[in-house]
Amino acid sequence: MSFAGRGLLQLTAELVDIPSVSHGEGEVANFVAATLAGADHLEITRIGHNVVARTTLGRDRRLLVAGHLDTVPPNGNERAVIEGDRCSGLGAADMKGGVAVMLDLAKSAGEPAVDVTYVWYACEEVEQRYSGLLEIETVSPDLLVADAAVLAEPTSAVVEAGCQGVLRVGVHLAGVRAHTARPWVGVNAIHRLGPLLERLEGFVGRRPLLDGCEYREALQAVRVESGVANNVVPDEARLVLSHRFAPDRTPDQAFEAICELLAPVLDTGRGDRIELEDSSLAAAPNLGHPLLASLVTSSGTAPQAKLGWTDVSFFSARGVPAANFGPGDPSLAHTAREWVGSDELELARAALGRLLTSEG
Amino acid sequence: MSFAGRGLLQLTAELVDIPSVSHGEGEVANFVAATLAGADHLEITRIGHNVVARTTLGRDRRLLVAGHLDTVPPNGNERAVIEGDRCSGLGAADMKGGVAVMLDLAKSAGEPAVDVTYVWYACEEVEQRYSGLLEIETVSPDLLVADAAVLAEPTSAVVEAGCQGVLRVGVHLAGVRAHTARPWVGVNAIHRLGPLLERLEGFVGRRPLLDGCEYREALQAVRVESGVANNVVPDEARLVLSHRFAPDRTPDQAFEAICELLAPVLDTGRGDRIELEDSSLAAAPNLGHPLLASLVTSSGTAPQAKLGWTDVSFFSARGVPAANFGPGDPSLAHTAREWVGSDELELARAALGRLLTSEG
Repeated sequence: MSFAGRGLLQLTAELVDIPSVSHGEGEVANFVAATLAGADHLEITRIGHNVVARTTLGRDRRLLVAGHLDTVPPNGNERAVIEGDRCSGLGAADMKGGVAVMLDLAKSAGEPAVDVTYVWYACEEVEQRYSGLLEIETVSPDLLVADAAVLAEPTSAVVEAGCQGVLRVGVHLAGVRAHTARPWVGVNAIHRLGPLLERLEGFVGRRPLLDGCEYREALQAVRVESGVANNVVPDEARLVLSHRFAPDRTPDQAFEAICELLAPVLDTGRGDRIELEDSSLAAAPNLGHPLLASLVTSSGTAPQAKLGWTDVSFFSARGVPAANFGPGDPSLAHTAREWVGSDELELARAALGRLLTSEG
Repeated sequence: MSFAGRGLLQLTAELVDIPSVSHGEGEVANFVAATLAGADHLEITRIGHNVVARTTLGRDRRLLVAGHLDTVPPNGNERAVIEGDRCSGLGAADMKGGVAVMLDLAKSAGEPAVDVTYVWYACEEVEQRYSGLLEIETVSPDLLVADAAVLAEPTSAVVEAGCQGVLRVGVHLAGVRAHTARPWVGVNAIHRLGPLLERLEGFVGRRPLLDGCEYREALQAVRVESGVANNVVPDEARLVLSHRFAPDRTPDQAFEAICELLAPVLDTGRGDRIELEDSSLAAAPNLGHPLLASLVTSSGTAPQAKLGWTDVSFFSARGVPAANFGPGDPSLAHTAREWVGSDELELARAALGRLLTSEG
């Protein structure tokens, strides 16, 4: 049985209508499990708000297909609306459409050429320590063993290879406090941000080509804070930077590059400092892996580099080559107007179906 | 009777030991009133936490001497400590020392050559709308009528003439929000601060000479805020500026100058804006007025421009020439280590005594 009858668009709408803001995925996990009930080719495991369904056909290779069940908080778009061949609503693009495709695939692909592990998981949109993937790994790590993984994140049904890493870097500039009526006896830490910001604005990101995909690094100030009182020259300013780096660098290498870039405008003798606050690994594209190469062929279009960070990094860090491929425009993710179209749902469903059929 | 016996330093210490953080000046006002009890040459009026004491000798001119009773919040320095010829503690410099000098003067100068109005007032260290001067003016405006005024603020016993005005200016820079993995589709409002901050840092303040006193303008960023989320290119940045301007300019003229200075780095078409959030009038030095000229002579040292803002502006705005003159180092005001020395207390007391004796 497949959802060809009522359609992937209708299934997506049903999924959108089940609230599943991060930490609240219980009901949608129930829906997933109930939908899979009766699919005898699947071994189903429920862990918290996560559902894992596996074929156990003894194939040579195993492909893992993963999608998260949670959404960001609603923004006036709680209810699904179908107009023509589009479904709008919270999570339509990110990623109830992908969840629908995975459900259809899991139900209907009873004799795949590879063994398949479907993972619907919780808490992707919040801090990584809450991730359902970590929860599954803690309880039953064998469930995540695979030769390759596809994250059904929105990619407009184009293979987005690997992912860039992320650094969060804190920069503290020091000054000397003074009364604003006599600022010349102090040093204004806010004013000292000027040359630093000019340097950031002049940053030209590397664009390395890896497995034929062009990555593109970026460096942005995302937060700035300073101020003591309206009559005080401030003695400290804090800037937070977000750096996206390509998979040919480790976080340490990427941080080293940022330190070198900013060294000319930092004065450690004065008390300036730069700190790595958080980092997430990049994931190499690994498009030479047979399963991912086959995914590219099945998709019918040229692969692109994934510039943002996704859970392909989770699998890549564990030695499982992974790529992003799913329905929905990624630039609509987290916007109030997100939607997904039936054309991309069908495209993604068909490409994944071909992948499961052709490989073995 | 004077405080020559127990000394001005001891009286300052007694005043420091009476807590009087802004809005809590009741007890210290009681102490002032009790200290003046029995001084038959004074007509005493209590209004809230303010005490006004006036001579009514029918002299041709009237001098007003004012000092505030409140302090900023304590900073581990609640108790007065006398070591050698110094008294340390909360408000010692700003301005319990000045309050002590005024008390001694009021008690002992029974036959001044000018009529004198002593004003001890509340809430100088907080928003101006709470000022005890405004409270007195509302209840009994005649009490503030005078030919000239001396604010016994800490000036190291040097006449500090007039005061500079203050503008608080808000600058909002606009950007275009985007994901930090694709910042090139947005505009980073924090990065746009760079040229603005460079322009502020390059600001060279005017230094006009007025009545022989050199004022010195200043322009400082005192607060900066921006940030949406760690993965979002921010679309707005807010900078607060403090501008100190000399008494030869009105607030409107000073604001106009700031707008001109920043115009090259603002893009109103993009949504940038600059707003005057608050302004305080400057006060002209008025050292040509006979009473203020006599104060300079009595002080025995050359006058200086007051670069900060004080309540001389309150009197100046009402047509009463005013100057700052009192014991204590103004640069210690609001610091945990403030203190006042007996030498400056005596100097200030003697100079004001000469002023009252010589004028008529």
